[in-house]
Amino acid sequence: MNMVKQISDLEVGYNVPAAVGMDEADIQTPCLVLDLDALERNIEKMGRFAKEMGVRHRVHGKMHKSVDVALLQEKLGGACGVCCQKVSEAESFARGGIKDVLVSNQVRDAAKIDRLARIPKLGARTICCVDDLANVADLSAAAQKHGTTIECLVEIDCGAGRCGVTTTPAVVEIAKAIDAAPGLVFSGIQAYQGAMQHLDSYEDRKAKIDIAVAMVKDAVDTLKAEGLDCDIVGGGGTGSYYFEGNSGVYNELQCGSYAFMDADYGRILDKNGKRIDQGEWENALFILTSVMSHAKADKAICDAGLKAQSVDSGLPVIYGRDDVTYVKCSDEHGVIADPDGVLKVNDKLKLVPGHCDPTCNVHDWYVGVRNGKVESVWPVTARGLAY
Amino acid sequence: MNMVKQISDLEVGYNVPAAVGMDEADIQTPCLVLDLDALERNIEKMGRFAKEMGVRHRVHGKMHKSVDVALLQEKLGGACGVCCQKVSEAESFARGGIKDVLVSNQVRDAAKIDRLARIPKLGARTICCVDDLANVADLSAAAQKHGTTIECLVEIDCGAGRCGVTTTPAVVEIAKAIDAAPGLVFSGIQAYQGAMQHLDSYEDRKAKIDIAVAMVKDAVDTLKAEGLDCDIVGGGGTGSYYFEGNSGVYNELQCGSYAFMDADYGRILDKNGKRIDQGEWENALFILTSVMSHAKADKAICDAGLKAQSVDSGLPVIYGRDDVTYVKCSDEHGVIADPDGVLKVNDKLKLVPGHCDPTCNVHDWYVGVRNGKVESVWPVTARGLAY
Repeated sequence: MNMVKQISDLEVGYNVPAAVGMDEADIQTPCLVLDLDALERNIEKMGRFAKEMGVRHRVHGKMHKSVDVALLQEKLGGACGVCCQKVSEAESFARGGIKDVLVSNQVRDAAKIDRLARIPKLGARTICCVDDLANVADLSAAAQKHGTTIECLVEIDCGAGRCGVTTTPAVVEIAKAIDAAPGLVFSGIQAYQGAMQHLDSYEDRKAKIDIAVAMVKDAVDTLKAEGLDCDIVGGGGTGSYYFEGNSGVYNELQCGSYAFMDADYGRILDKNGKRIDQGEWENALFILTSVMSHAKADKAICDAGLKAQSVDSGLPVIYGRDDVTYVKCSDEHGVIADPDGVLKVNDKLKLVPGHCDPTCNVHDWYVGVRNGKVESVWPVTARGLAY
Repeated sequence: MNMVKQISDLEVGYNVPAAVGMDEADIQTPCLVLDLDALERNIEKMGRFAKEMGVRHRVHGKMHKSVDVALLQEKLGGACGVCCQKVSEAESFARGGIKDVLVSNQVRDAAKIDRLARIPKLGARTICCVDDLANVADLSAAAQKHGTTIECLVEIDCGAGRCGVTTTPAVVEIAKAIDAAPGLVFSGIQAYQGAMQHLDSYEDRKAKIDIAVAMVKDAVDTLKAEGLDCDIVGGGGTGSYYFEGNSGVYNELQCGSYAFMDADYGRILDKNGKRIDQGEWENALFILTSVMSHAKADKAICDAGLKAQSVDSGLPVIYGRDDVTYVKCSDEHGVIADPDGVLKVNDKLKLVPGHCDPTCNVHDWYVGVRNGKVESVWPVTARGLAY
């Protein structure tokens, strides 16, 4: 794919963990490994779900920060485009060939606004969120300066407690200002309920989304009465997409984690009380790690610590093993309880990270594996692009 | 310095947060900022302490992963060399001009051992740790293959609970094997008590190090009786260096965090019961962040979330402010309690990260600031070099 660097020119181990064609057993650790079959199945499945519900799926590129994965989501999952959280990510996706990019976040700094206004010149429809009347004039001035169009969604805080306004009058006021501003187009509503995605209970999640849907419906209806149609009513995540998708109000989902899965999402339950990583989605993302010390009989030390993952949502889980447990994480080491001493030095283990997004953010490469062979080595395209 | 890329060739914002000569106010956020005056004072101070105690200081490069910072630690702090945790880090430091590099960790994978054995060809003394007799033959074969010398320290687990052997007979057995192996040199002991560095109480920390010192002394004395001298007896961190440095047993310190400081280390107390970030060390490292939304009166949202830091050791602290508090962290946002509504959009705040090492690990650049101007933009040289 277009962003794959010439791995053959680089030295495996110095800055890349694998080369295409290599046996899976020879991958250098710690690194991120993608089970390409599982990844493709997840992507295809969410594409079917969105189609069945009659909504678009704008995949969340901030989860993986990878142009290659985003292009796969367009190809296999029918994604209508990408959302991301940073202007520099949007630049990266647009440069990589994504034609429809939403910065599902506020853009307030003058230099960032200027760069945002230039993204349409890269050939991508460019959308951002607004939650403050004062932002409208700045965005408009930048779009006019560059002769481009920035589409704007008004962001509603429907429970996440971060950015976004909380009342319909505030939505309408900002929407009207956008609609009146040269260089800007009012394109709809952003309303992502981030705080409930990880509630275990399906019913608890539904109750939170019911509140969000009611808020969003009131805003959409009121805007319509004012003559402002919403081309996009966007939101929804891996723990809630069926609620928004079937709401009759939202028309665009923004799921990210479904493609890779992680331990924290895996624990939430579907409507039948079944963990979502046991049927709904497959673990496609792993931290491959090696045992590097076993000087104590009941304890193995592996090479994936805090530098190889984020533990904000809990420790990783060792995939497919119930005889050994990852029990402690320090900067460079993971401590694995091995009560029966079954592990040996250089044994490799696959860890399901606690939280995929910030774990992907510490790695430079995804090693794609199929049938025991390395099939792809994709850069984490927008890694480090935080601005 | 040697590793500084030509920033002028890059576009500020796309992948670098600042350019040399820029006003501090124009730095793009979120990014890491170094207060160069504070950094230099910390480095000089630890250099004086080591000199006064009559021990060497092998600075811990895994904290900052920066050749530029390591060279500054040699220049201003009299550092004898660098320790780090990964072969790829060691390669990076050796390529950057550090002449004495210890991988203070086990190297077990065949490909990694082969690369380790080639590092002396980059002009650096190359040292690693060993905690398993089975490792000795592999290291020896690689050194012979490349016609190089690998120096080896036997690692003692003196309380960290990670790598390392726990008895003097085990130390002696491995030391003898190293001494007898072609291509290897037995150079001493590695004994870092990582588990106690963050205990608040000075006396609690001392008690743990007393145990470590006793273990190490027994090993060193026994080795001496066997005719094996320890050129290096290494260990000690920011929470304990005075204990090891004055022990009469250790001769090489391995401090990392003292140079940058962080919120978790800052909370520990010195022998007078005073926080170590209030006199002993200065905060030199900050995450610079901007307010990007203030749609709720009592809550500001900033642009430094989990992608800009590691929260394994707690949330960041807002530097120099007691009117606003960083209270919540999600992937892309930090929630700041602002009860009096004093913050405005685009206001910048300096965060002291909870834990410096894994926070530095998510960034590509250090922006060095002095007198309100950007004086340096240093790459985090070994970022992503995890293998």
